Amino acid sequence: MDGMEEQVELVGKAFVEHYYHLFDTNRQSLSSLYQPSSMLTFEGQNIQGVQDIAGKLTQLPFDQCQHVISTIDSQPSSFPGGIIVFVSGNLQLPGEEHQLRFSQMFHLIPTIQGSFYVQNDIFRLNYG
Amino acid sequence: MDGMEEQVELVGKAFVEHYYHLFDTNRQSLSSLYQPSSMLTFEGQNIQGVQDIAGKLTQLPFDQCQHVISTIDSQPSSFPGGIIVFVSGNLQLPGEEHQLRFSQMFHLIPTIQGSFYVQNDIFRLNYG
Repeated sequence: MDGMEEQVELVGKAFVEHYYHLFDTNRQSLSSLYQPSSMLTFEGQNIQGVQDIAGKLTQLPFDQCQHVISTIDSQPSSFPGGIIVFVSGNLQLPGEEHQLRFSQMFHLIPTIQGSFYVQNDIFRLNYG
Repeated sequence: MDGMEEQVELVGKAFVEHYYHLFDTNRQSLSSLYQPSSMLTFEGQNIQGVQDIAGKLTQLPFDQCQHVISTIDSQPSSFPGGIIVFVSGNLQLPGEEHQLRFSQMFHLIPTIQGSFYVQNDIFRLNYG
């Protein structure tokens, strides 16, 4: 593993930890990670822009949840400084005995402030 | 759904159909879809370049398989003309009673010939 590859993996892991921590503890603050150009496809539904994406995420039919991450794969993208992050894991909903498997990908684009925003976000539950 | 969104979905679907058809019938020809800069992360293993990617895909521990696609989600990427495609489905191996669930994402970049190559490819089996 070279230095570039290692840095991409570190950014991917840090982002994933941050993202799902916000999702599970303070979901409305996820809006800080998106920009007007951002796209979310959630279970096949296309949503664009900070407001609509935040609206979708905060109006899901469960108030509390816990993401348990299984795998994180990160690659540099063709966009300069961009990173593609691919996640698999389990979603625990309150009162549900069984966890739901999910997969999600993020395309992270660097901001001029030196952090990243989510340009592309695709989420799918994996039905058995 | 606007025209741009529709076109992105059509390209994503056509690519997915083409990719898994080649995978299931003539796996070595998949090398035509990658370029020297292409990256594959297969079950956590990072591989780069046409030759190494083709080598990995043709040396998987099964000769025959059949992909059955469940969902295809496509979005335009930040790279001009690029498309991100997210796939979920089942993988049937010969002699195996149960299918394996998988998720895979591709970042497609347009070529000067008017087609696309795979710049980023991340594959994961979804263990139940």
